[in-house]
Amino acid sequence: MAQKPSIPKGTRDFGPVEMARRNYIFDTIREVFKLYGFSQIETPAMENLSTLMGKYGEEGDKLLFKILNSGNWPASLENIDLQSESIGHLTSKISEKGLRYDLTVPFARFVVQHRNELTMPFKRYQIQPVWRADRPQKGRYREFYQCDADVVGSDSLINEIELISLIDEVFSRLGINITIKLNNRKVLSGIAELVGQPDKLIDITVAIDKIDKIGIENVKAELSERGISEESIERLIPILEINGSTQERIAALSEILKEVETGAKGVAELEEVISGINNLGLKANIELDVSLARGLNYYTGTIIEVKAKDVAIGSITGGGRYDNLTGVFGMPGLSGVGISFGADRIYDVLNALDLYPDSASATTRVMFTNFGKSEADVSMKYLKLFREAGISAEIYPDAAKMKKQMQRANDLAIPFVAIVGEEEMKQGLVTLKNMADGSQKMLTVDDAIAMVK
Amino acid sequence: MAQKPSIPKGTRDFGPVEMARRNYIFDTIREVFKLYGFSQIETPAMENLSTLMGKYGEEGDKLLFKILNSGNWPASLENIDLQSESIGHLTSKISEKGLRYDLTVPFARFVVQHRNELTMPFKRYQIQPVWRADRPQKGRYREFYQCDADVVGSDSLINEIELISLIDEVFSRLGINITIKLNNRKVLSGIAELVGQPDKLIDITVAIDKIDKIGIENVKAELSERGISEESIERLIPILEINGSTQERIAALSEILKEVETGAKGVAELEEVISGINNLGLKANIELDVSLARGLNYYTGTIIEVKAKDVAIGSITGGGRYDNLTGVFGMPGLSGVGISFGADRIYDVLNALDLYPDSASATTRVMFTNFGKSEADVSMKYLKLFREAGISAEIYPDAAKMKKQMQRANDLAIPFVAIVGEEEMKQGLVTLKNMADGSQKMLTVDDAIAMVK
Repeated sequence: MAQKPSIPKGTRDFGPVEMARRNYIFDTIREVFKLYGFSQIETPAMENLSTLMGKYGEEGDKLLFKILNSGNWPASLENIDLQSESIGHLTSKISEKGLRYDLTVPFARFVVQHRNELTMPFKRYQIQPVWRADRPQKGRYREFYQCDADVVGSDSLINEIELISLIDEVFSRLGINITIKLNNRKVLSGIAELVGQPDKLIDITVAIDKIDKIGIENVKAELSERGISEESIERLIPILEINGSTQERIAALSEILKEVETGAKGVAELEEVISGINNLGLKANIELDVSLARGLNYYTGTIIEVKAKDVAIGSITGGGRYDNLTGVFGMPGLSGVGISFGADRIYDVLNALDLYPDSASATTRVMFTNFGKSEADVSMKYLKLFREAGISAEIYPDAAKMKKQMQRANDLAIPFVAIVGEEEMKQGLVTLKNMADGSQKMLTVDDAIAMVK
Repeated sequence: MAQKPSIPKGTRDFGPVEMARRNYIFDTIREVFKLYGFSQIETPAMENLSTLMGKYGEEGDKLLFKILNSGNWPASLENIDLQSESIGHLTSKISEKGLRYDLTVPFARFVVQHRNELTMPFKRYQIQPVWRADRPQKGRYREFYQCDADVVGSDSLINEIELISLIDEVFSRLGINITIKLNNRKVLSGIAELVGQPDKLIDITVAIDKIDKIGIENVKAELSERGISEESIERLIPILEINGSTQERIAALSEILKEVETGAKGVAELEEVISGINNLGLKANIELDVSLARGLNYYTGTIIEVKAKDVAIGSITGGGRYDNLTGVFGMPGLSGVGISFGADRIYDVLNALDLYPDSASATTRVMFTNFGKSEADVSMKYLKLFREAGISAEIYPDAAKMKKQMQRANDLAIPFVAIVGEEEMKQGLVTLKNMADGSQKMLTVDDAIAMVK
């Protein structure tokens, strides 16, 4: 019996309709990346495990897809007790390559490996799939695209302003209304320092993050549970009570953190970034959010997160500044700032709001019918003229029944059918049928081309 | 000590310059695919090994990159003697997924899996990387892109004519002069039948293939060595002596094969395809080559191969008709015809002939200088206007020395530098420097934009 084919769980096929929509998203992002002076790179799907291991925590190491060494791998396990050795150790005997888990580590590896060829600051973008052996669930896949832009080799906050402006442009082109949330890791450090518990940075951030959901009293209780002293909690209250416009929030935060050097620096950075954004006048809503902490261990300055205003879904883009991208590969002190677009969630948002333009659906604009050899010969000459005019077109390859041919145009949502039959051949014309309203007209080829355009 | 990073052998990083060139190739092909009414699909990098194994011969199975199962894989090897069991059997215990080896098998799997959603004939294109654990050598990589277009579900030779016309259009756009070689598997079968040795089809084809290199006498000797009888060789001679124009070759072949049914059908098919091409008038040189046999076991009708005229390199595109794409997955009788562009070789040809247009090199067109906060604020507003006009532009993020800033523009081959200093700010103008000839002019922003465009 033949196999019934399927694909590995957590992976997806993309058919023509999904591809047209995904291409619309990727092309839009790519075009804006280019407009902002970012250059594309690509790295191999497989990296050495020595490059990948230890970069994503212990849990991350387990989620790497590992490639079995070619050749006689069982020989590498000889004289080893499979039951007493750790899986990690055994794996290292038979696998030395893995699939990339994200685009950041390969980018860091790329920068170090090609440091002598790169012009700093280096502005790169990269759009490639990544793989994670996560438990598949709704909206979480084992293969998905990441879509990253980074500037490395410059500490200037102009880079932040540029990236935020780029985010604004992308979502404006896609027609998605967004809020861009901003914070700064130094503000978070300053707050922890202010309340006298710099070691409790994460606990404090997690608790602050819940204020909208559970209210100030419950946040206080949670802070207490997490071992924050009553005195510290009292000092946190003004921070929990910050509200008003971005300008007012900045002013309040500035006042609260004025005595804490790191915190004050964070506020000053936020102020400079926000002032730069205001200078340009973005479409997006900008929101200062002192609870924003994405990837706390990684970011060292500005933190950025984007939410869709009209659809309840997690963040659709995120990023921030880091100050040591490549230290782990022996090249310390390289700072940068980057963002990552969540293509799958953007796809869901566009679907939910039905925001795809016509260009993101159909491919073929015109289908020629086929009534046999002599008609087809003429049709193919006309077809060539349509294509020369830049119109996607095809001919039904077989001289099938008219109904079957029209069915194809319908199924593929091809908007025009061009018919060359006996009468049209006699007159040197073509009948163009508009599939939307069923109207049809006998025209010269030039007129038919003009009509489709 | 930090790790010195590298990538797995046989894989490549693509930097900005290579990516711009590769994108130029892929974008050109993609645009023509669309113009001809092909729709894009993508399939996962990982397929089940049950989908991949046994499709590429025994050697191919060994060249598949296999993914180690997640979790406690050593438990699956318990109570198995690693030394007495075959590697294949042991591998199946700890690996159930592999990386795709080509795009054809995943396409066949896709067609069967989604048969109820597809409109036949189905015209798909697919541009994705594939992986093979081949020994790396010059021009052969373990990860490389394939770039395929296929029409399935139609026996009409119009599909062949369309694909050949598509090939012509792609290479015409790329500026590469080509010869398209054509043959038909039925002609090869007919020849073997004619000489009374249908079982020696491959031996005969291999020998015929060498006629240009070693001459007719040596071909005869080789045929004899391969066990072809003297009588058969004598009957082959008229075939070896075929020459002249395509029209003359077809006529000669038709005469020779007129009594052999399969062969006569092959000639008729070739004739129809070539007449269809001539009807359209292609730029490429068309050549009937009875020794052409690419993937003999796979193709059943038309065989296509493309050579660059001006560079000595193997075939840069190939394809043909097959009549049972999906039988192995339980869906028999689906015929089709497809072509595959060899992106890596096309890249080499374009490099050798220096045929890349300007658009395939630089990304950023204008770089604004940065002399400090107030100049940068103004520059960023201008920068926005440049981008609104569709011009890729950036600003030097730090207020570095002029020389360093100009060096960046030079290194990245950015053609224009826009300077906003004290004088320009006073007058509301911008100085535009043309990096090619060093000339510069103070202009309004609108004029500067017009000049760059």
